[in-house]
Amino acid sequence: MKTINIGILGYGVVGVGVAKLLKQKKQLLESRTGAVLNLKTIADIDTTTKREVELGTTALVSDANLVINDPEIDIIVETIGGETIAREFILKALENKKHVVTANKALIAGYGNDLVKVARDNLVDLAFEASVGGCMPIIKSLRESLVANDIKSMSAILNGTCNYILTKISKDGSGFEDALKDAQELGYAEAEPSLDIDGFDTAHKLAILNSLAHGMEINLKDIYVEGIRNITPVDIKLAKEFGYTIKLLAIGKIHEDHVEARVHPTMIPASNPLSYVDKSMNAIAIDADATGQTMLYGHGAGMMPTASAVLSDIADIARNIISGIKRRVPILGYPEDNIKPVPILPMEELYTRYYFRFEAQDHPGVLAKISGILGENNISIKSVHQKGKKRNGKVPVVMISHTAKEAWVQKALKEISKTDSVAGRPVVIRIEDTYQE
Amino acid sequence: MKTINIGILGYGVVGVGVAKLLKQKKQLLESRTGAVLNLKTIADIDTTTKREVELGTTALVSDANLVINDPEIDIIVETIGGETIAREFILKALENKKHVVTANKALIAGYGNDLVKVARDNLVDLAFEASVGGCMPIIKSLRESLVANDIKSMSAILNGTCNYILTKISKDGSGFEDALKDAQELGYAEAEPSLDIDGFDTAHKLAILNSLAHGMEINLKDIYVEGIRNITPVDIKLAKEFGYTIKLLAIGKIHEDHVEARVHPTMIPASNPLSYVDKSMNAIAIDADATGQTMLYGHGAGMMPTASAVLSDIADIARNIISGIKRRVPILGYPEDNIKPVPILPMEELYTRYYFRFEAQDHPGVLAKISGILGENNISIKSVHQKGKKRNGKVPVVMISHTAKEAWVQKALKEISKTDSVAGRPVVIRIEDTYQE
Repeated sequence: MKTINIGILGYGVVGVGVAKLLKQKKQLLESRTGAVLNLKTIADIDTTTKREVELGTTALVSDANLVINDPEIDIIVETIGGETIAREFILKALENKKHVVTANKALIAGYGNDLVKVARDNLVDLAFEASVGGCMPIIKSLRESLVANDIKSMSAILNGTCNYILTKISKDGSGFEDALKDAQELGYAEAEPSLDIDGFDTAHKLAILNSLAHGMEINLKDIYVEGIRNITPVDIKLAKEFGYTIKLLAIGKIHEDHVEARVHPTMIPASNPLSYVDKSMNAIAIDADATGQTMLYGHGAGMMPTASAVLSDIADIARNIISGIKRRVPILGYPEDNIKPVPILPMEELYTRYYFRFEAQDHPGVLAKISGILGENNISIKSVHQKGKKRNGKVPVVMISHTAKEAWVQKALKEISKTDSVAGRPVVIRIEDTYQE
Repeated sequence: MKTINIGILGYGVVGVGVAKLLKQKKQLLESRTGAVLNLKTIADIDTTTKREVELGTTALVSDANLVINDPEIDIIVETIGGETIAREFILKALENKKHVVTANKALIAGYGNDLVKVARDNLVDLAFEASVGGCMPIIKSLRESLVANDIKSMSAILNGTCNYILTKISKDGSGFEDALKDAQELGYAEAEPSLDIDGFDTAHKLAILNSLAHGMEINLKDIYVEGIRNITPVDIKLAKEFGYTIKLLAIGKIHEDHVEARVHPTMIPASNPLSYVDKSMNAIAIDADATGQTMLYGHGAGMMPTASAVLSDIADIARNIISGIKRRVPILGYPEDNIKPVPILPMEELYTRYYFRFEAQDHPGVLAKISGILGENNISIKSVHQKGKKRNGKVPVVMISHTAKEAWVQKALKEISKTDSVAGRPVVIRIEDTYQE
């Protein structure tokens, strides 16, 4: 049986998970792939902390070059994270003609186009199933299963931390800060939680999905990103009364000559299966022209779910090596020459429906004033609700709009804020309720 | 660009869908696979009915041998259905060294082991992504994505007809016969609906999934099968009161030296995401040791969703041909030599929880009598409810059991039926409420 040598760079949570699976599932992997997947070397600056893996003949070294430059190693797994040293190591590994498997979404989202070119020039594979949706086979689905489909839209819950926090606020009525603290205590959120809760992690993943879905260059910088810091129990409760759930969604839609790509808290109706995705679970709903609506659901993070995805990439590459081939499926699903830049719609140009909550002064004419400004800006209101009790002379007024343009909405809200009819900043949450099976 | 010639056997609903995608998505498929996927010939006994596909240079012939024996054809798609002529054609095609793609679950479930051997002996591929779960990439997930996982259990909604009927009964309170008639009028159910509603179609699919999940020979005949004919609005309503939904589930679980494989109406709690899968949608939940719970959701049938899955198989084979290889992934996920028969647990040996509904005589001592017989048979009852009104001197009594053995339950129910305490056959529905993320 052919032996395929594997090296791991970075022996943290995911690295340990990958090592564990390679060791514990040795026999299963041999039985499935027909190859011995031998974990030859692991490199990490910390070679002393005891990890719960029986290393056996595997070397643990502090010098990454002992992996990157080892002529016997076929596949290198990068589980360091971040965009500096990980990038440098991956570039060197690709240049050394190693196949590379990574779970690093920030790196792929930020530098993927260049890395793909280097992999192409060196005739090796670069695989990143674990970078989006943890154990869910979303990359494989887009690259291989949906080949005969035009992907009309994707909406996805891609960050377990945010989804845990929103679920917590929704179920317990906790405030955002309490829910975040709870998530931190449970290990779902980092001490510095911005990457997750401000939506950046979700945007990284959306950039990758959009590229694979539409055969476009990876474009992170033009994605609109808004996190969940301003979501209050009040809005979640009101949303529920209207039959909606609030989720942090990554939304990608294709149009004639551009795509939509945006990350923000979104109100979705109960008819959308994403509304049932609770706690730290992730899900990706895809509307494609042949399949109709489909959804993948599962753990989007964590040691073993992530390691499972890394192993699926390793097995794919191993099966290629056994067959004597490489680069069987293009890295981004389309041959590099067919991948073009596709512009992302500027947010001001977006048309969607909106939920507004104003803290309105409780005196006559205020509603007429607000409605008037909205009307002058072409925003037509589907329903108006005075919800909750008067506090400090103000009453909460909720409006649900018909489809309107983001630019109109931002202009109208600025004008409304300048009047003395409302206090504070109005709450704006975009609505997606076009879900159809 | 290399041209790969494709032939289709059977120009009915799915065949038309496949032809449509090959024609309409010609450019997309070329861009993705780097090959021209040329639909050379379609064979069907009916060559006159007009189908909504522009055939162009594609020949439509009545003699299947013109496809099977054409030396220029590389891939043959079988969309005839059934187990007689389709089997004969597939065998001939494999012997002629053609790769075969089929959506035929009855055939794979019934004769898959033999077909796999013939494909192996002739060094060609046999692919059947469309046979289970329509457009959902479940075969690919089991063969490729979950390679490093032991699959602990699968529970799945695999028949859109049954799920439509159960949803209809649940939402409208329709009786079974009315819901079936409605499904027939909408085209979800056949005029002769037994294959669907008696659970056989679901069992075919479970036989295939079990094989792929556990590396075992396909075993259809030992699967326990019970359909949905006896499900009443009363039981669905009562289930709801206890927090359960009733679904026709395919359940596959692995044990030390055997598997469970059963198809029957099942009560599942709201914590199980399958409970939200409504109407004709399908879903497959998999609990694997590294990934934890995952779920695929989508259309399990229909022209275009099925055709989309067929095309994913065609693209896979095309990518192999382009790379100059074949049989890159073993047909059943494991090399043929590693596939062993694994016994299926006889139903009498099953341990699970039960819902019972008795039409009990409304006089003193009846409850004691029923409980007594259950107790004598080791069945311990978690809760007892007298639900609904007295009718003809009988009151409905519902009991939910703790875990008990199927053999004990059947024995106890027989004994209870023999007493004068109850009228008619008690209703028994098995409960699955061990769902954990």
